[in-house]
Amino acid sequence: MRHDLSFIGVRDLVLCFAVLILVAAAFAQTKPRARDLGIPFDGKPGPLNAITDVKGVEVGFTTLISGSGKLKVGEGPVRTGVTAVLPRGKRSFNDPVFAGWYSLNGNGEMTGTTWVEEGGFLEGPVMITNTHSVGVVRDAVIAWRVQQAPPDAEGYWWSLPVVAETWDGYLNDINGFHVKPPDVFHALDTAASGPVAEGNVGGGTGMICNQFKGGTGTASRRLSDKNGGYTVGVLLQCNYGRQDQLRIAGINVGRELPPGIPGEKDNGSIIVVVATDAPLLPHQLKRLVRRVPLGLGRDGSYSGNGSGDIFIAFSTANSGAWDPKGVKTVTMLPSDEMEPVFLATVQAVEEAVINAMIAAETVTGINGHKVLAIPHDQLRAVLKKYNRLVDVPAGKQ
Amino acid sequence: MRHDLSFIGVRDLVLCFAVLILVAAAFAQTKPRARDLGIPFDGKPGPLNAITDVKGVEVGFTTLISGSGKLKVGEGPVRTGVTAVLPRGKRSFNDPVFAGWYSLNGNGEMTGTTWVEEGGFLEGPVMITNTHSVGVVRDAVIAWRVQQAPPDAEGYWWSLPVVAETWDGYLNDINGFHVKPPDVFHALDTAASGPVAEGNVGGGTGMICNQFKGGTGTASRRLSDKNGGYTVGVLLQCNYGRQDQLRIAGINVGRELPPGIPGEKDNGSIIVVVATDAPLLPHQLKRLVRRVPLGLGRDGSYSGNGSGDIFIAFSTANSGAWDPKGVKTVTMLPSDEMEPVFLATVQAVEEAVINAMIAAETVTGINGHKVLAIPHDQLRAVLKKYNRLVDVPAGKQ
Amino acid sequence: MRHDLSFIGVRDLVLCFAVLILVAAAFAQTKPRARDLGIPFDGKPGPLNAITDVKGVEVGFTTLISGSGKLKVGEGPVRTGVTAVLPRGKRSFNDPVFAGWYSLNGNGEMTGTTWVEEGGFLEGPVMITNTHSVGVVRDAVIAWRVQQAPPDAEGYWWSLPVVAETWDGYLNDINGFHVKPPDVFHALDTAASGPVAEGNVGGGTGMICNQFKGGTGTASRRLSDKNGGYTVGVLLQCNYGRQDQLRIAGINVGRELPPGIPGEKDNGSIIVVVATDAPLLPHQLKRLVRRVPLGLGRDGSYSGNGSGDIFIAFSTANSGAWDPKGVKTVTMLPSDEMEPVFLATVQAVEEAVINAMIAAETVTGINGHKVLAIPHDQLRAVLKKYNRLVDVPAGKQ
Amino acid sequence: MRHDLSFIGVRDLVLCFAVLILVAAAFAQTKPRARDLGIPFDGKPGPLNAITDVKGVEVGFTTLISGSGKLKVGEGPVRTGVTAVLPRGKRSFNDPVFAGWYSLNGNGEMTGTTWVEEGGFLEGPVMITNTHSVGVVRDAVIAWRVQQAPPDAEGYWWSLPVVAETWDGYLNDINGFHVKPPDVFHALDTAASGPVAEGNVGGGTGMICNQFKGGTGTASRRLSDKNGGYTVGVLLQCNYGRQDQLRIAGINVGRELPPGIPGEKDNGSIIVVVATDAPLLPHQLKRLVRRVPLGLGRDGSYSGNGSGDIFIAFSTANSGAWDPKGVKTVTMLPSDEMEPVFLATVQAVEEAVINAMIAAETVTGINGHKVLAIPHDQLRAVLKKYNRLVDVPAGKQ
Repeated sequence: MRHDLSFIGVRDLVLCFAVLILVAAAFAQTKPRARDLGIPFDGKPGPLNAITDVKGVEVGFTTLISGSGKLKVGEGPVRTGVTAVLPRGKRSFNDPVFAGWYSLNGNGEMTGTTWVEEGGFLEGPVMITNTHSVGVVRDAVIAWRVQQAPPDAEGYWWSLPVVAETWDGYLNDINGFHVKPPDVFHALDTAASGPVAEGNVGGGTGMICNQFKGGTGTASRRLSDKNGGYTVGVLLQCNYGRQDQLRIAGINVGRELPPGIPGEKDNGSIIVVVATDAPLLPHQLKRLVRRVPLGLGRDGSYSGNGSGDIFIAFSTANSGAWDPKGVKTVTMLPSDEMEPVFLATVQAVEEAVINAMIAAETVTGINGHKVLAIPHDQLRAVLKKYNRLVDVPAGKQ
Repeated sequence: MRHDLSFIGVRDLVLCFAVLILVAAAFAQTKPRARDLGIPFDGKPGPLNAITDVKGVEVGFTTLISGSGKLKVGEGPVRTGVTAVLPRGKRSFNDPVFAGWYSLNGNGEMTGTTWVEEGGFLEGPVMITNTHSVGVVRDAVIAWRVQQAPPDAEGYWWSLPVVAETWDGYLNDINGFHVKPPDVFHALDTAASGPVAEGNVGGGTGMICNQFKGGTGTASRRLSDKNGGYTVGVLLQCNYGRQDQLRIAGINVGRELPPGIPGEKDNGSIIVVVATDAPLLPHQLKRLVRRVPLGLGRDGSYSGNGSGDIFIAFSTANSGAWDPKGVKTVTMLPSDEMEPVFLATVQAVEEAVINAMIAAETVTGINGHKVLAIPHDQLRAVLKKYNRLVDVPAGKQ
Repeated sequence: MRHDLSFIGVRDLVLCFAVLILVAAAFAQTKPRARDLGIPFDGKPGPLNAITDVKGVEVGFTTLISGSGKLKVGEGPVRTGVTAVLPRGKRSFNDPVFAGWYSLNGNGEMTGTTWVEEGGFLEGPVMITNTHSVGVVRDAVIAWRVQQAPPDAEGYWWSLPVVAETWDGYLNDINGFHVKPPDVFHALDTAASGPVAEGNVGGGTGMICNQFKGGTGTASRRLSDKNGGYTVGVLLQCNYGRQDQLRIAGINVGRELPPGIPGEKDNGSIIVVVATDAPLLPHQLKRLVRRVPLGLGRDGSYSGNGSGDIFIAFSTANSGAWDPKGVKTVTMLPSDEMEPVFLATVQAVEEAVINAMIAAETVTGINGHKVLAIPHDQLRAVLKKYNRLVDVPAGKQ
Repeated sequence: MRHDLSFIGVRDLVLCFAVLILVAAAFAQTKPRARDLGIPFDGKPGPLNAITDVKGVEVGFTTLISGSGKLKVGEGPVRTGVTAVLPRGKRSFNDPVFAGWYSLNGNGEMTGTTWVEEGGFLEGPVMITNTHSVGVVRDAVIAWRVQQAPPDAEGYWWSLPVVAETWDGYLNDINGFHVKPPDVFHALDTAASGPVAEGNVGGGTGMICNQFKGGTGTASRRLSDKNGGYTVGVLLQCNYGRQDQLRIAGINVGRELPPGIPGEKDNGSIIVVVATDAPLLPHQLKRLVRRVPLGLGRDGSYSGNGSGDIFIAFSTANSGAWDPKGVKTVTMLPSDEMEPVFLATVQAVEEAVINAMIAAETVTGINGHKVLAIPHDQLRAVLKKYNRLVDVPAGKQ
């Protein structure tokens, strides 16, 4: 029945199974990350070097991969997905977090930001998908919420979801609108703490970054105890850039690698989610999120006209602050003590982009469009030429 | 078939028929507007006193009314709809207009604004619907566009639609998600110049304003030839406010009228679309749209916490400015000469809110919730007490 | 000696004396305020109906009036001054307040706002003067601070003062740069709690509002205990508007009063300072300050191109929040409970503008330019015609 | 006489003489710039590799250096100055340029930006000085303007100057307020096209950057004819950063150089002025200026809490656009064609910071505070280790 959002067909079951396998594979990954290749980065990561190092943060993916060959709109091939970041896991809806956002180049969409800006809270998850599926994901987040709990007395409940996107139409049948409400529910239902899959997963499935295969990337930093011991985590969906501008470890490596896909522009986009447990108020999170470009600049981004570079940051401190009744007591880091949090953010952004590229694998999508993964060995060779490789822990590489 | 957006079922045909009757009725309206009741307003309206006085602007509605009695989520009762404002009619997608937006109180959604802010263009229509249907409307605008014309070489086309909302869950089965893609196509397909229906139409169907029935309202101003002869038109979806704050013609009329629905807060919201043919650049349209609150203040708005008060303005001048190749020549009003355009905007906003309330008719929705139209005769009596009625042209009233 | 800022010449002593008399006169005022004339306003003011109803707030003025006749640049006539608003009196420098600002029409200056926006604190007083004296006032605030207390270890101390302006060149020798550092020190040194002088005082000395004499105005609202019992106070320097747009108590009174000075534009400006003791965080104060236009709209403002309409709000709650070491605990009003604070702000702004006009007295300045006070009796006659006068407490009027 | 701004004392004459010698020396510089040391940068500079490669742009400096030894507030030592950037030389006041600004971290001051944001024009020069002299510079710009030309009919003229600052109190007697109106007039009067002095000149005299001596830096890029042949020029006053974060040519050189001054924070600030002849509208210049952080990120900036990182961009195209009467015709680059301008901006910013550091010379200021220039030979040695030196044209190095 057309209006029943909970309808699950055979396609969905097959899909769900495929996804489970993929996710399992991802968690069992032996894939190297950027540091495993000897690429140097500043700062000290948390245990997982992932956004989930910020306690309470959960990440879920639905990855949709089916078909091959010539594009038939509505049939495929499909190379897309949905990513869900839940600031406080399943409690995200009932215990919103302080948040702030920034658009470096607004050629993209992140719904819900007008309320984030106004009220200072992120009242649910951050979802990331492809450009043409933002709407279905948005309404499905509401539907999912309605399914989980009764609305308030007037039949009213949380209803301004945050959903962002980057464009995957070079690989994916984007006009086929393949993301469906159950795909959204799946990403939300399966969100978990622990290691985070990178590369061709979730919304990152069909991404292209610096003319190589892009996707989902993550990284984190843990501050020294002297600096409060806070953690900053970053998750991004990386779809921007030009090969000749790509910098890794400060070197223009793109110019010395074999060519990726053709192009002379910075199309695509990048969505960045920054999480921290440092007690930052909304206006402080706006300060934090404006540092994201400083990290992207290190990787060679110049934020081209076609790039939707939109970022959101939240703090998991101050649980309970959103409660609508009575004066609240909240904690706040002094301005001066934000300094190491700023630096950690810049560092984690720089690394997460490279992690996305290193984890991504070669993909062939619609009409035989093929996007190569960045070649690890050749990349190492270039960095070695510039004395930019560092020792890698034993058992890695 | 689930993915076929063009599927039209029996329900849709019935609905469509109902809508056509409603629209026909609206255009044949003999309903009085605010001025017809002798309410005084400043400034000289255009011929229709509507946003369509700005040449090229087209407006379309889909009004969804069905069922009565107790709420069954997914079944009804339904009191909702979709409003479409097309800046250049069917050419809106291919000849974008300069635009600017402003959020007075961001407890609401207007998608697509990040790109409006960045690029300075509105690249399609402005859509208005209920809070829980923003997503379906957004993706459907893309689908409609894809149906109308081939995408560009990479399979890519316009994809960041502007869709705004106000909440109608007091009257409408909002969690039933009754707005469907064909409803969106209908509003777009039937958009037209000429008189604009007001009150319980389109997205305005289930609105409540100052605790009386609200809805869609419109008004316009035409500047003197000395001031350039430009037209400013406003269309708004009016769902905000408290009766005890309502001011008409400067008088706190709400306090002297019989009570509307109960409540002590400013829930609801107001979406305002401002159109002009004055040649304004994007930064000038941002200036213009920031004047909307000056008009709302005159009607008694204080923009409560729950009110999503989000506004967008565009200029129909400078056709062709968006063309992506080669330096463009565009025209610009000097800052000094914007002054009468500012004043006209404030005046048209003040009037369009009252027009929405005067046109709206009593509605009973879910669970027998009944919202009364503002009583015209009693309103006139209050205004008369304050010597605030003006003569009405013969044949009106 | 040229660099000695503390130099006080004969002119200054004379001036100082004149000021003292003026201030004394102001405090002994028997001048009616707007309510004393029977003009109705919404809401319940605090005891003084002034910004100083917010505990701790102090206001100081330096009023510079000298000379008459033809303008000789550098000699006079002088009709200008300086206004100082200290959020926590003399402790303002050491215990900054949370703050937020908004520019409705940025044809003006308010220095220091970039840091207010970034850091969320107002780290000293808000100063208001004429357009061409913003610089001298700014640096003098730093000099005054340096005189009061030792800088920190590196010779560094508070150095981004907030100074706003409106233009008084129709009455004042503005290019003579008559405001000097001692005038700034005087306003700061004499700032006090208690009743606040209105009309032709401080920065408001040479103001014109709606083509009548304008100046300094203030008002306040006290919320019910049910709503937290908070106070909102407003002080403004009122220099904007057109007579034919002026609305008092909702009536276009300007059109029925004898003409003030000639003009068809909204030149001039308005600076508004909003103070509250409600515990609002920086992002909440931005919300609050964006409500100011809703109050101005009620008085007929349309914020013309030439009008610098810039507003700042602060909260005196959360003393100690600025301390630079260690995590701070602060209090925050929930979003929902901000509603009455919003309404109070709109109401106090509406009244403070009218208070400024009612208190202002006819002034003749450079080149015999004469600006009339709004005629109280004629104003009452107009309002009476519209049944808009209310009873006045005995002993007033 | 106290009010006579044109008073020039013996000190001023001596000072003026000293300045002239300094400026002459600067123009006869044989000092190497960053490229002369073999440091690689992306993109093709204009002939001067300076902001003055943008035709019409003029730059002037007043450099104030006097005294040595222990600080006596009001006497010295003095290590400060004023920098003036005139978009259209002496015509800057009568033919304003389109402009946009951005604050990455607003712990600083740039006056006049509220009007830049609102009106879209920069109506005069951009001035840069020390933190405590912003006021005197601001009012002096007005005084200078008044001296140059008659005001308009009402005695009114341009009056919202743009003045920015960075803090030089580690080297300079900043609380002595040594910058005087004649110093401002001098920078304006002597502004010229041609080569631009770098390092310890003008407002850059007392700057510290990445714990070495900082100051004024400049660079430019010229786009290929295919990309329109436009020029982008950058001038910056560089006072930010931490040595251990400093990156040159992508290498963390700071960690391998001998220590500069002590410190663990990013105090200081950076002011960046971007000029271009590309025909960009105000909203496009805002896009451009938001790219500045991408360049700073490449140099290792993380924009610490204490850093006032504020940027302004203008376009010298569209002469005559500001004229207040009648609809204007202006030209606009399409969004898509802004891409190379974005990239050029990022590149020029990256280089101008390094140019400032390379040109700056060791300075001893108040209380014997000594700040070392970055050691050129040791820097080259570090870069060589990473294979990051490029060949230098003959006759350089």
